[in-house]
Amino acid sequence: MCSHCSCGQPTRTVQLRHNLLATNDAAAERNRERFAAAGLLVLNVLSAPGSGKTALLEQLARQWRPAPVGVIVGDLATDNDAIRLRAAGARAVQIQTGDLCHLEAAMVGRAFDQLEPQGMELLLIENVGNLVCPTAFDLGEQLRLVLLSVTEGEDKPLKYPALFKSADVVVINKVDIAEAVGFDHAAAHANLAGVAPQAPIFEVSARSGVGLDALMHWLSHQRQ
Amino acid sequence: MCSHCSCGQPTRTVQLRHNLLATNDAAAERNRERFAAAGLLVLNVLSAPGSGKTALLEQLARQWRPAPVGVIVGDLATDNDAIRLRAAGARAVQIQTGDLCHLEAAMVGRAFDQLEPQGMELLLIENVGNLVCPTAFDLGEQLRLVLLSVTEGEDKPLKYPALFKSADVVVINKVDIAEAVGFDHAAAHANLAGVAPQAPIFEVSARSGVGLDALMHWLSHQRQ
Repeated sequence: MCSHCSCGQPTRTVQLRHNLLATNDAAAERNRERFAAAGLLVLNVLSAPGSGKTALLEQLARQWRPAPVGVIVGDLATDNDAIRLRAAGARAVQIQTGDLCHLEAAMVGRAFDQLEPQGMELLLIENVGNLVCPTAFDLGEQLRLVLLSVTEGEDKPLKYPALFKSADVVVINKVDIAEAVGFDHAAAHANLAGVAPQAPIFEVSARSGVGLDALMHWLSHQRQ
Repeated sequence: MCSHCSCGQPTRTVQLRHNLLATNDAAAERNRERFAAAGLLVLNVLSAPGSGKTALLEQLARQWRPAPVGVIVGDLATDNDAIRLRAAGARAVQIQTGDLCHLEAAMVGRAFDQLEPQGMELLLIENVGNLVCPTAFDLGEQLRLVLLSVTEGEDKPLKYPALFKSADVVVINKVDIAEAVGFDHAAAHANLAGVAPQAPIFEVSARSGVGLDALMHWLSHQRQ
């Protein structure tokens, strides 16, 4: 049985998972080399469903101009997000994962084949909305951006610690309605400081635009 | 390769998943027999992280009195939810899943061993916050309750269709802040009617209590 927790998974399942991750890691390394050769800053953007990933990416695509922003966006179904992102000026490729709960590096590599990297500085990978499964899958990104909405509660870093521990930057979204939902900023920052002390925190509203300048400034200094 | 979608999963992974689900289905049948023998109405409660599952269950535990409500609650880490639910009068057992993204029937069976069913009419199983992975795992429940928060957007039934298709009832939560987040009730109902026409819909606020009477009334008529 799995020796990590009380999940009761058989050892064979755990072993297969390790093999799957090793295959993914090799594909992620190939992606990383391709991204570096193209001079791209690449972010893996992760959150729960409905935290506002697409709205944030629309804002980044608009504000990063004149350079075009590339987006690879994963959803189980629909290509709504790619359509929204193209309308915001992004070069967007949609991946439909069917019933798969996360993106994998090989899928991202195939999607990247469809993007024209000429003139592009920033590539955003919008993962499937899920605070668990994407954690273990390196996509070849430079930075992981984990998005948390004020509507989800201050305790999410404690309940989904592995994902938050892997974050390079945490963005708290929907701060324009923080008061209406009784969001406790101090508790959220204390929980993040305990679980993800490595990650700078930005508070934004992708809807109103509040806080985006500081995030844009930080991102523009992360290009190698 | 997987023939269902563009996920690129190897056939061996897909086959192992089928075996895992067959094992789970057998354990779910055993749970179902035990739940029926105890005369329990059992709900599998599913949503994204932060939709308000625990707040809804606290309300149901309080309002179902004088009969005690049982809760089996799954989280990757912490036992915060079981503590909250006991304070609301529930008999609660916490399952910590480690890095597992969903509950499985065997885990629920072991947790049920720790509950005292005497006098209990209602057992609520709070799944891990995830709109993908719990879909395929029958826990032996009679009913699936899928919770959607107004803060997550009206498009979630389209983006996570498999889970919503499996719902016996859909509850839209946080309607007290629907206006503040610009929630489009008509669009949400149209999307649910397309994906999950079988499921009655209740609009509630677990925080303010609005709409809970109608949900309680419906639930009280689902006991066999």
